[in-house]
Amino acid sequence: MVRQLKLGAVLMGVGGPGQHDTWTHPEIPGDASIDIRWYAERARQAEAALFDLVFIVDSQFITPDSPPHYLNRLEPLTLLSALAVSTTHIGLVGTLTTSYNTPFNLARRLASLDLISGGRAGWNVVATGDGGTAANYSRDEHFDYASRYGRALESVRVCQGLWDSYEDDAFPRDVATGVFVDPTRQHRLDHVGEHFSVRGPLNISRSPQGQPVIFQAGDSDEGRDLGASIGEGIFTHSPTLEKAQAFYRDIKARAAAKGRDPEHVLIMPGVTPVVADTDDEAREIERANRLGKDFAKNLAQFGRPFGWHDFSGYDLDAPFPDLGDLGADSFRTQAEQIKKVAREERLTLRQTVERFMSSTPQPFVGSATTVAAEIERWFTGRGLDGLNVHITVPSEFARFTDEVLPILRERGVVRSEYEATTLRGNLGLPIPRNVHTAAREARVPTPAHV
Amino acid sequence: MVRQLKLGAVLMGVGGPGQHDTWTHPEIPGDASIDIRWYAERARQAEAALFDLVFIVDSQFITPDSPPHYLNRLEPLTLLSALAVSTTHIGLVGTLTTSYNTPFNLARRLASLDLISGGRAGWNVVATGDGGTAANYSRDEHFDYASRYGRALESVRVCQGLWDSYEDDAFPRDVATGVFVDPTRQHRLDHVGEHFSVRGPLNISRSPQGQPVIFQAGDSDEGRDLGASIGEGIFTHSPTLEKAQAFYRDIKARAAAKGRDPEHVLIMPGVTPVVADTDDEAREIERANRLGKDFAKNLAQFGRPFGWHDFSGYDLDAPFPDLGDLGADSFRTQAEQIKKVAREERLTLRQTVERFMSSTPQPFVGSATTVAAEIERWFTGRGLDGLNVHITVPSEFARFTDEVLPILRERGVVRSEYEATTLRGNLGLPIPRNVHTAAREARVPTPAHV
Repeated sequence: MVRQLKLGAVLMGVGGPGQHDTWTHPEIPGDASIDIRWYAERARQAEAALFDLVFIVDSQFITPDSPPHYLNRLEPLTLLSALAVSTTHIGLVGTLTTSYNTPFNLARRLASLDLISGGRAGWNVVATGDGGTAANYSRDEHFDYASRYGRALESVRVCQGLWDSYEDDAFPRDVATGVFVDPTRQHRLDHVGEHFSVRGPLNISRSPQGQPVIFQAGDSDEGRDLGASIGEGIFTHSPTLEKAQAFYRDIKARAAAKGRDPEHVLIMPGVTPVVADTDDEAREIERANRLGKDFAKNLAQFGRPFGWHDFSGYDLDAPFPDLGDLGADSFRTQAEQIKKVAREERLTLRQTVERFMSSTPQPFVGSATTVAAEIERWFTGRGLDGLNVHITVPSEFARFTDEVLPILRERGVVRSEYEATTLRGNLGLPIPRNVHTAAREARVPTPAHV
Repeated sequence: MVRQLKLGAVLMGVGGPGQHDTWTHPEIPGDASIDIRWYAERARQAEAALFDLVFIVDSQFITPDSPPHYLNRLEPLTLLSALAVSTTHIGLVGTLTTSYNTPFNLARRLASLDLISGGRAGWNVVATGDGGTAANYSRDEHFDYASRYGRALESVRVCQGLWDSYEDDAFPRDVATGVFVDPTRQHRLDHVGEHFSVRGPLNISRSPQGQPVIFQAGDSDEGRDLGASIGEGIFTHSPTLEKAQAFYRDIKARAAAKGRDPEHVLIMPGVTPVVADTDDEAREIERANRLGKDFAKNLAQFGRPFGWHDFSGYDLDAPFPDLGDLGADSFRTQAEQIKKVAREERLTLRQTVERFMSSTPQPFVGSATTVAAEIERWFTGRGLDGLNVHITVPSEFARFTDEVLPILRERGVVRSEYEATTLRGNLGLPIPRNVHTAAREARVPTPAHV
């Protein structure tokens, strides 16, 4: 099969990190983040452009200073279930944390979405970086870093085990003989692990794609290892092709070392292309977007990797403060990277905020021809397998789909029609074999659940 | 406002307790319980008949012997969210357990459904009777009876507190001044209780009906007390008008004793009306339905209140066995009632199963005229405020809506058109005042959260 670029659309409403002010845009309703019609229209727009998936981010911890979209939004899976019956082909990928959900509930809700959508569900597995979340879930403190990743890995394994509770021929539903279920095709899991004990079976059967597709993001060593273990799609951010290629090679090598087929781990960086009539015009728009942001809001958002540390009392023009190990239990890699750069380059707080919050020029900025050529260069250069496109303004999204994608389609880089009605089918990922069916047909015992 | 009968429709697929064999019915697809189109068609059928709500039951524990619908079905809230965009007026009531969900997740998912549906969400609060469920949630044993009810009450209070996180004017979204949120209208909960600690705020605002409507079922003293405390709709089962009236008076008195308006606690027994051309014919159908059931399946289902105790090894015609306190931590009231009747009436196991599983003639059986008259008698006699109609076969449901309801409509007992687009509006329940708005306007501190 010819390798083609995969396309995701990040669906948001009124502005998250780096997009604080989208709620003031005339094309975006002020309550977009809680308006199901907004999401349905955006999903249909992406589906009309033959995107593989829509992607819903999440968090459960807010303060009055949180970005607009964070303050007031729909829970991802509840939202995606409504989108499942508003669309027909596009994949539905939701963020759900393994730190504050039980595996049985996760497995059940995702399997339900998978059936309702006819096999289009995906799960972006997160371990939750915001330490403040713990207080919403009867815990004095957030799980430590190692526990979070251990729970994430174990949760996914448990869910995958539960999703195989029924073999595909478990329900004869034979009216003549009165046999509804074949009890030999229903399987308990009997999982006993470090973090969870789950007996099963799950009370739901498999969808046309077998199991929901697993997505993951995470740039720390632990995060990359988790992604290489369980991720079938990897969300990331890569400012340059060289960094993208290095990340790509690293993840694929880690996956291969774990015995997985690297082609079944799709690297999809999040990008915000800016398309204009000329390259100069596009660069100017991108620059104005970056510099036009409200510094105070960026400063608040800058605190997130440090556990939403409040930087507003600091002298902006003094050297970057000594923060000790602040952030070690939140978004550790990001926090350490910020501290390292600030120290090595002797930056002030203001310079550090500008560096990390708003001052990196984005890739994929220019005329449609330029943007298409850049995307193709990154794709053929193995910097990515797909793009997770984050453009909230509908007319700007349309400019990308109507001007850039036709060029890529002409060159065979993106599809001309959906290959399948399932997310796995469109992403070119195999349907996971039911472990019990496989063991039975090989005449061996089902492997012990890990 | 004229008091009118409220109508719920229990939506199931291929047969639950007492309806084992519906999966063999030619009108019911064998995979109805996992088919979103089946549910959407049933919901639209009920909406066309101006029903107040559809109701989804639930459980999370199965064995190979569980009834067909239990074996393989959609998670209630995932299902209802898809129905929210497939319907426009009907209420969407889902069963969610407080034993194996955290209040923050419950509050968030229900609030999301409430916004997606435009204010039509309802929550049937259950504490989970099936002891085996614990093993799916990393617990050695199920919560004991008192803990379950304590957790249920506290969960609902926490959710109601979280649902008031934002006052209705919290989001000015003023483009001119750049003010998206008014931080003085966002409130933390800071709940610290016996079972849960939840800081808040919830990251979602209120729907047009303010908060989801709370439903509850439960016949034990603790269950009735919980219903009287938090229930706005009470699901129950009443075989005779006299028993229905006694239950009705008891719940309303308990609610009044707690300072609530008894008119805002709606009693809605579950019923399965049988409508035929003549009373005799209807009674014959009802009797055949009851006696035609598979005894072995009834025997398996009979074990449920006793923690799915397996009765298949007992002598069916010996006196009812001594079960000790089996069932005390499952469905206690039901288990104790069965033991009491079997002992007092010296029944065999077979007689006991027949008595409790299949042998009580149902009310509301007869010609359309008879059924309508009976419903009106129970309604005006204050045996009920509404009916939770459980008819799975579409043509039989249509017979009830097309023949019985027009008679009741003629007499003013049921509505001729929806009064509102929210569930509260149609049920005649008030919108709960936001506690923070109320306290501010009364110039008193927000009452401490209980």
